[in-house]
Amino acid sequence: MKTVFSGVQLSHAPKHEISDGELKPAVEIPSRAEMVLAAVKQRRLGDIFEPDDFGMRPVRRVHSDGYVDFLEGFWEKWTAAGRQSEAFPFVWPVRSLRADPVPDHIDGLLGRYSMDAGTPLGGHTFAAAKASANTAITAAKLVMDGEKSAFGLCRPPGHHAGADFFGGYCFFNNAAIAAQWLRDNGLARVAILDVDYHHGNGTQSIFYGRSDVLFLSIHADPRQEYPYFLGHADETGEQAGTGFTRNWPLPLGTDWQAYLPALEDACRWLLVYRPEVLIVSLGLDCFEKDPISGFKFTSEDFFDLGRKLSFADIPTVFLMEGGYAIEALGTNCVNVLEGFETG
Amino acid sequence: MKTVFSGVQLSHAPKHEISDGELKPAVEIPSRAEMVLAAVKQRRLGDIFEPDDFGMRPVRRVHSDGYVDFLEGFWEKWTAAGRQSEAFPFVWPVRSLRADPVPDHIDGLLGRYSMDAGTPLGGHTFAAAKASANTAITAAKLVMDGEKSAFGLCRPPGHHAGADFFGGYCFFNNAAIAAQWLRDNGLARVAILDVDYHHGNGTQSIFYGRSDVLFLSIHADPRQEYPYFLGHADETGEQAGTGFTRNWPLPLGTDWQAYLPALEDACRWLLVYRPEVLIVSLGLDCFEKDPISGFKFTSEDFFDLGRKLSFADIPTVFLMEGGYAIEALGTNCVNVLEGFETG
Ligand SMILES: [Zn+2]
Ligand SMILES: [Zn+2]
Repeated sequence: MKTVFSGVQLSHAPKHEISDGELKPAVEIPSRAEMVLAAVKQRRLGDIFEPDDFGMRPVRRVHSDGYVDFLEGFWEKWTAAGRQSEAFPFVWPVRSLRADPVPDHIDGLLGRYSMDAGTPLGGHTFAAAKASANTAITAAKLVMDGEKSAFGLCRPPGHHAGADFFGGYCFFNNAAIAAQWLRDNGLARVAILDVDYHHGNGTQSIFYGRSDVLFLSIHADPRQEYPYFLGHADETGEQAGTGFTRNWPLPLGTDWQAYLPALEDACRWLLVYRPEVLIVSLGLDCFEKDPISGFKFTSEDFFDLGRKLSFADIPTVFLMEGGYAIEALGTNCVNVLEGFETG
Repeated sequence: MKTVFSGVQLSHAPKHEISDGELKPAVEIPSRAEMVLAAVKQRRLGDIFEPDDFGMRPVRRVHSDGYVDFLEGFWEKWTAAGRQSEAFPFVWPVRSLRADPVPDHIDGLLGRYSMDAGTPLGGHTFAAAKASANTAITAAKLVMDGEKSAFGLCRPPGHHAGADFFGGYCFFNNAAIAAQWLRDNGLARVAILDVDYHHGNGTQSIFYGRSDVLFLSIHADPRQEYPYFLGHADETGEQAGTGFTRNWPLPLGTDWQAYLPALEDACRWLLVYRPEVLIVSLGLDCFEKDPISGFKFTSEDFFDLGRKLSFADIPTVFLMEGGYAIEALGTNCVNVLEGFETG
């Protein structure tokens, strides 16, 4: 399987994140990608390619112009305001507050275009997020051009990013951008299966009213886990998208055996939908030793996950999302990809 | 003028707040109230009374049961989850995310019931907020019972707190609770004039659809200043409340002379509305030396503000809101109150 990756993606290097009222060391750090890249090389998964540059047009097909402009111009405004440390928003337009007019002040902009306080913005964030999106599109293009599968080693991840907000370590929604790019390049039906431990709230909301991109997600119950405010079983799409979103929220402590029925159910939906390409939002944070998660996958289980995903010979694009058990990340990731190839 | 205050209000003692991506020393601290109390005594403003206990019913007339229950039970759940430091939320149900179902997890609850990351919750927050609400109601009752004016030395402040969220150092909306209590005790028309530097987004949203409580606010333009997402000039009420909200957003750097036309305009609205009681949300953060604000009031200007507010002999309840220039806080506050009395 071919891998796509750009070193520019490493330039986003958060120092801290805010959780439990404390500044703690960031967990979404460059070494995540480095560990996966090392495993891809060591286990000879296949050739590694630099992404092509598709420009910002495919990004703007998914994200609002206001949001993209904000991210692109942020660091200049931030430093012009005399700020030097990485940026965190601190106030949000929740119920009864207005998301427009868009504020002029940089702190207002940060809240207007975000959903959480745990996703620091730095001087290289925009460049890294753009490179991550290019990585996703390049992997999708490989598959559209005939590869049976490809791996986009995306970082920063994407699935929490909405049409006009960042959050959950995500800035551009790589999976959504790749899916939209495939649609814009002639494919009629694309499916996204999100197996990250956390619900892919951004991806879901981007396609919630559409039937041309099926969204399936298996994840920790949002009543108990981040992102808390989306990913419930009763969310099944709206308007033209009614029926084209499907969530399997599972309890904390879920192991592979308890996960399997949901996965098999998702596979049945894929069989019925018959996507021309499947995009897998590949989080590795279902791992039992993940420091911020609560499922119980072993490293071997990720191999079985990959095998299962090969069930219907659908051309498949794997895009990396979360996973924070740094030491095991490469092993677990390549286990999925090898499992798929040998499945 | 009689003052109402309870020492319980001092028990909410935040250590830090999150701003600019750093944990900084909290500015909404107990000494704020102590400085004002000392000035009230030193300048012999009048007798000081403990508040009566009105129970939680008047609070629940303004705030949702879910929110009140959350605040009341929070610290027990927080410590049961093994947390010890003061609590900050970190993810919010913004656009495309759901505010219900209400999460079970304590971190989800924190985000569900808040609007910002700068308002720490501690073990004594609920008791202090409840005492602050009782202080507001007691001051309102003094005026309803015949006093020409009264001062509720509220702390924590209230005007940023919405029907179901905390934020901006505010938990229970003291002004809204007092206004609703007056309505529930026979008054037909109550007005709230908010002269805090920041827009009173919580108060506005609570009464936005109602004509029985007029809401007027003069504040820094939310395009440039917290709370960023409410307080624009085009917000004038909705449904039955259409026309009964009025905002005067003013530019950073506004001094007393530039402020005066807005205040005189607000006074004209009060003359037309003829409230039986006026509640003044008395922030002192228009002061030129306020550490987090950008207006240019001198200490003498606060005396003139008080004089202006006496223009129409409306029975008036002063409730303290913000103001963070600790050394001058007592002087500036009592200047307003003496200005009113001698006006
Ligand atoms: Zn995740
Ligand atoms: Zn204020």
